[in-house]
Formats: sequence, C-alpha cells, structure tokens
Amino acid sequence: MAEKITSLNNTIVKYTQKLNQKKYRDEEDKFLLEGFKSIEEAVNENVDIEYIFVLESKAAKYNFFKGKSYLTTDAVLAKISSADTPPEAVGVAKKKHHSLQAFKDYKKVVLLENVQDLGNLGTILRAACAFGVDGIVLYGNCADMYNPKCVRSSVGNLWKIPVAYTTSFEELKSIFKDFERVATLPLASNLLKNYRMPNKTLIMFGSEADGLSEELIKYSTNSVKIEMCDNVESLNLAVSCSIIMYKSFVNGK
Amino acid sequence: MAEKITSLNNTIVKYTQKLNQKKYRDEEDKFLLEGFKSIEEAVNENVDIEYIFVLESKAAKYNFFKGKSYLTTDAVLAKISSADTPPEAVGVAKKKHHSLQAFKDYKKVVLLENVQDLGNLGTILRAACAFGVDGIVLYGNCADMYNPKCVRSSVGNLWKIPVAYTTSFEELKSIFKDFERVATLPLASNLLKNYRMPNKTLIMFGSEADGLSEELIKYSTNSVKIEMCDNVESLNLAVSCSIIMYKSFVNGK
Repeated sequence: MAEKITSLNNTIVKYTQKLNQKKYRDEEDKFLLEGFKSIEEAVNENVDIEYIFVLESKAAKYNFFKGKSYLTTDAVLAKISSADTPPEAVGVAKKKHHSLQAFKDYKKVVLLENVQDLGNLGTILRAACAFGVDGIVLYGNCADMYNPKCVRSSVGNLWKIPVAYTTSFEELKSIFKDFERVATLPLASNLLKNYRMPNKTLIMFGSEADGLSEELIKYSTNSVKIEMCDNVESLNLAVSCSIIMYKSFVNGK
Repeated sequence: MAEKITSLNNTIVKYTQKLNQKKYRDEEDKFLLEGFKSIEEAVNENVDIEYIFVLESKAAKYNFFKGKSYLTTDAVLAKISSADTPPEAVGVAKKKHHSLQAFKDYKKVVLLENVQDLGNLGTILRAACAFGVDGIVLYGNCADMYNPKCVRSSVGNLWKIPVAYTTSFEELKSIFKDFERVATLPLASNLLKNYRMPNKTLIMFGSEADGLSEELIKYSTNSVKIEMCDNVESLNLAVSCSIIMYKSFVNGK
C-alpha cells in the first residue's frame, strides 16, 4: 500500500520543493522529474529514482515504477513543481556525472559556450540524442541542465547522452587536440551544404547574444555557416544547432 | 522635443498595456513591439508604428524612429511589457493582414495546424524568413502570432513573411489544389535526405502533442520524416519544422 501525503508542510514535500533551486540540487546531487514522459523515460534508462509523488487518481498509470511512491493531491504537486500547469507526478532522481576524459574517444561532439537559455539547452539535448551525438560539452558560464525547465524541454532525453561541464580552456585543449574543431559563425569559410564532417569532430556554438568567444574562434580548425536570406540576421540557437547536427551527423556524410 | 510620460495611470500607458490581451489587439488591430531589435526591424520593413515609449536615458539610440516618441521610466515600461525583463522601449504598431488567395501563386508554403506554443510559433516564423518560405498558413486553432511572446521569439521577422489564418478546409482545398501537399509524419514514406521538393509545395506540420489531423493526412499527396535514432520519440516542433524547411527549400534542390 503506497503512503499518502497531503500536507503542504510535510518534510518530504518541503525537501522536494527545494530541489527547484540550483543550490539544493548541487548540495543533494539530485533533480526533479516532472510528468509521465520524464518518469517513464528515466525508468527506461535506469536513472536512479529515489521516490515519486503521484496524484492519487493517476496512481495506476505509474505502476511501472517499482520504487517508493507517495499518493498526493494537486495542491502538493503545484507546490513541488515550478511548471505553469502542475504535472500529475513529480519524481526525485540522482544526477549522473560524466568526466570530460571519456570524450577523447568520441567522434561526434557538440560544445555550447555560455548558453543560458534553459529552453534552448533542453531542446538541443533532445535533438543531440536524436541525431546520435556522442557527447555535449557545456563550456564557460552555462545554465544548469538539471533546472526543471531544461529537464522539461529535453522531454525525457536529458540522461540519454553524456554531458560534461568545464570552464578550463587547458582541459579542452588536452581532450580535443586530435579533433577537427568547427566554429559556427556568420562569416564562416564553409557553407553547411558543402561541409563534410571528418572522423572526429567537435562543433562549437556560442550563445545567441554574444556568439563564440575570440578564444574559441582562434582555437577552431575550420568554420561553417547555414545558408540563409540576407534580410534575416540569425536563427534561434536550438534551431541552428539542430540543423547543423542533422546535416553533419545524419544527412551529409 | 519629445513628450514625457511617467504616470502609471496615464491614459496612453493604460491603452498600451491593454494590448497584451488578444481581445484588445483584435479590437484595435494593433500589437506591441518590444525592445530595440523589434522596433528597428519594424522601421526597416515599413511597419506602421503609431508611437513608441522609450527609456529617457536611451532616447538617443532611437533617433532613427521619426514618429511620435514618449520619454518614460523603467516602471512604465515594466507595466506595459509582459517580458520578464522589461525592455528599454515599447512600440505600438498596426497589424498587417494577408489574404489566403495570394498563396495560390506561391511556391514554398508551410502550414501549421493547431499550433499553440508561442515560442515555437515565433521561432518558426524567424526560420521561415531565413529559408525563403513564401508564406505561412495557420490552420485550425492556432495561437495569436501578435502575442508579445511570439513577437519576441520571431526577433523582428514576424512582418517579413505573409501569414494567413484559416479554419476552413474548403478554402485550403481551393487554394492548394495544384500543390504537392506533404505531411510530416513519424511513419512517412520518404526520408528527408531523399526528398526533393516539386515546384509548388505545401509542407504541413501538426502540433507537438497531437500531430497532424486525419483530415490533413488524407489531404496530403506525399509524406516525409526526419531520420533519427530509435530511442528518441520526436523533436521540438520548431526544430523539426526548421530542419525540413532548410533541407527542402535551401539545401537539397
């Protein structure tokens, strides 16, 4: 029989709610899974889920989850979740950590520099999984991928791909020295339609506001841009990143 | 000398603020432009701007706008704007209307069915401009493209492309009878990498939650899907729409 928790002041409710803040996610090394899709995909991928809160009327749907379940109310879920529309279930899971060292042996790597937009980050992780990217590097001052908004935007794909954070340029240089390092730039030497990815490629994207840093532009060994009409200055970052991943890693070899 | 407005209760402030609501945008046939980029691109494209509110300290930057300007404060801009971070200027502009009749002569048309996500809609309009789409049809129960969130996501591209709303299947049938009508589906007959666009093509996308309706699937003359890994169910709508537009209209002819 699953335990019932309905009080907004319950200790576990308060503990769970705190995981909306980066500080507590970092301290506890945990994050929130919101809604059916996230919990289902996390179970499929063997993510370590500590417990879930589920709306009492929807409990049967979550029978596939064999761990600890708390039956609860809309009010508790609304308190726990940061979503505009509270989900029918919220889980608490352990983060997975990946070392940048393993990236040495990868072939298709994407680097994002100083990316702050949580929706874009989650959307890029989702597309990177779809297009068989081996790993993602979050370089510099990037947003927290375990922020609930990013987890939602990834639609259950966050934990399917190795993601490593680093702020060390020295570390980057040691890991990717044998890679073709491609800068994505408005004034690039190659058009995407003519670009063919070598065996080991790191594709680098800057933030939408600032683009790639001078440091990474200097570090690149090649560059590429998406062909587009003159009267449009740029594309959304998740869109341009996804088009380049699709063209480089799926269709164009 | 530009007029100064600092009272939150000023009639023009209250009038402008109301344009955050669809009801007033429809009644007045106007919408809001937020921030430098939106106002600059609107001026470049000869959008009919009635007036702008601009932060007094930033007024010089907006000298390119020759119409009516009101100098104002952060507090007034925060009241007028629905953005999390209030912009330094907000303009009020007249909507542009496009008749679906003109679409008969177009060659590259994209249809979105029941699309409600404002961020996706704006992002798709931005990419459609970049990839030379001739026009966009918003079919069924679609979100209002003049919602400030959509205007922001389009980053100044909203008014560069003809967009027409319709809920009439009969009208669709009469306009697009000579077109190849391509349904984008998970179980499509063509992979995107093999698909070549005929001279007149309508590409149709459903909403992320529901996909294309049976009605439009039946109406289609062909179908296409993006190649992706088995363990990912789908892509973000703006991402898949942009990849298909790029591949069909720019790179792949």
